[in-house]
Amino acid sequence: MKEYCFGIDVGGTSIKCGLFRVDGTLEEKWEIPTRTEEHGKAILPDAAASIQAKMQERGISREKVAGVGVGVPGPVNREGEVSRAVNLDWGYKHVSKEMEELTGLPAKAANDANAAALGEAWKGGAEGASQVIMATLGTGVGGGIIVDGKILPGVHGAGGEIGHANIEPSETEPCNCGNRGCLEQVASATGIVRLAEKELEKSTEDSMLRMLGAGGLTAKAVFDAYKQGDSLAGRVVDKFAAYLGRGLAMFACVVDPEVILIGGGVARAGMPLIDAVQREFTKAAFPSCKEIPIRLAVLGNDAGIYGAARTVLQ
Amino acid sequence: MKEYCFGIDVGGTSIKCGLFRVDGTLEEKWEIPTRTEEHGKAILPDAAASIQAKMQERGISREKVAGVGVGVPGPVNREGEVSRAVNLDWGYKHVSKEMEELTGLPAKAANDANAAALGEAWKGGAEGASQVIMATLGTGVGGGIIVDGKILPGVHGAGGEIGHANIEPSETEPCNCGNRGCLEQVASATGIVRLAEKELEKSTEDSMLRMLGAGGLTAKAVFDAYKQGDSLAGRVVDKFAAYLGRGLAMFACVVDPEVILIGGGVARAGMPLIDAVQREFTKAAFPSCKEIPIRLAVLGNDAGIYGAARTVLQ
Repeated sequence: MKEYCFGIDVGGTSIKCGLFRVDGTLEEKWEIPTRTEEHGKAILPDAAASIQAKMQERGISREKVAGVGVGVPGPVNREGEVSRAVNLDWGYKHVSKEMEELTGLPAKAANDANAAALGEAWKGGAEGASQVIMATLGTGVGGGIIVDGKILPGVHGAGGEIGHANIEPSETEPCNCGNRGCLEQVASATGIVRLAEKELEKSTEDSMLRMLGAGGLTAKAVFDAYKQGDSLAGRVVDKFAAYLGRGLAMFACVVDPEVILIGGGVARAGMPLIDAVQREFTKAAFPSCKEIPIRLAVLGNDAGIYGAARTVLQ
Repeated sequence: MKEYCFGIDVGGTSIKCGLFRVDGTLEEKWEIPTRTEEHGKAILPDAAASIQAKMQERGISREKVAGVGVGVPGPVNREGEVSRAVNLDWGYKHVSKEMEELTGLPAKAANDANAAALGEAWKGGAEGASQVIMATLGTGVGGGIIVDGKILPGVHGAGGEIGHANIEPSETEPCNCGNRGCLEQVASATGIVRLAEKELEKSTEDSMLRMLGAGGLTAKAVFDAYKQGDSLAGRVVDKFAAYLGRGLAMFACVVDPEVILIGGGVARAGMPLIDAVQREFTKAAFPSCKEIPIRLAVLGNDAGIYGAARTVLQ
């Protein structure tokens, strides 16, 4: 009888670990540092050792553990193989197989943004929904698609890579991926700052954003000014919302989900952000998709461990 | 032991019927007229009677038939319910249930463009692929998404409605759906004619397209002129390909399929169309999706009966 499972979320600086009951109750979470030296060869052994120590500490036998799910910041295919993960200095790695060998437990692997979407669909902002689109707005824009309650990983591990949808073909600056015009360039924290800089250059209009010192112009500052009625910040938020809302409407034509979630650091701006995006989404969406609700993700940084744990129960 | 299944593709003027072996061999196909009078109430009974007549004619007992799949020109949900089908003058109808009652056979229903995608993934241009995006370019633009070998129907039956992705936010004319800027407005047969008309208005440049009489300016004429080196037609095809290629690249960020198919009447333009779209797709696609091949659908008008038949085998 399986009672427990582990969810591991491997990040560039720390590895988040969660011990879950199979009903989705988070029993305990903890973090260990990510050692990226020597092509990150210690990362999975460190995680495995931490899991085994936890099992010993709690007196949990192997028979009671359904498995270990691992979220990785890179493309992961259906077989649990990673082609490369830049932030971990990994080249090809068969993550699920290696974790099975290290722990003697069944293991699965998923892209971290996909795992976050699955976590939110399991126990978060889309709890109970089987069809979900999630956009994670952080330094970049990640995404995850849930179809029939499962991650859509894609053939090259690029399922849900919505941050690289070409939303602005007239863009002249390159995205990190090498293309020009990606959603990430206008809807991530850095993208919102870019939009604000352009808006500030265009006019000499008074704005709270103009008084910020070097480094002070952040996505948070833009949303704070917007909430206080700053009209230039309002135009920046309108542009951001038009791009993201229209993008989500296009993705909804493909997937037609029950709910769309927005998470990541930028989403801390809360309901004013959601309201702006929902308005633009509704404008652009196919008629039978116009009512799809856009909601805030609720699990924050824990979404990844929830989703990783969930993968071993499917 | 099931040996046979039926695929039915209900169109506005005719109902296509196919008798298949369960291995996908098309034994026989035929058509009957679509009687749309009195809210199309005779449509499913006519189809059921035609199936039963065929079983009697061939001496096929009910025990040997896996079921009847029905493709419908409208949104169909997972349960086989249609909310409305304008071309058939149908309001709400539980198609699969009604067909089961009429025939005494298991029945399923799917949107016709989704069924066409499934048919092509089963026995057509994407045979053997489990992850497919198909775009059907006809009077409008339809689409179908295959994930894990099955149709992605969506929550409101709008899965794969890629013709209504908002690809051109600066569009001023309305689409049939009521929105402005849909892919259908620039990538359907009528959309290509619109692009050509705009291009002809913009200049007085010599072009084979200028000499066509009223009604002569068709998508086929545009591609014919393009193949003969007409430079104005070339610009029209470039615009069409940029919209469609970029749209498909955005959808590929969501689904990350093995193959993308293009079908429908417009696709009769053949490889020159595919080459132009592939070029633009590769430009806009996320790096790990750039190699996804774009291919011609091959089943033509039979794709729908193939896919409808396939649904009852899953």
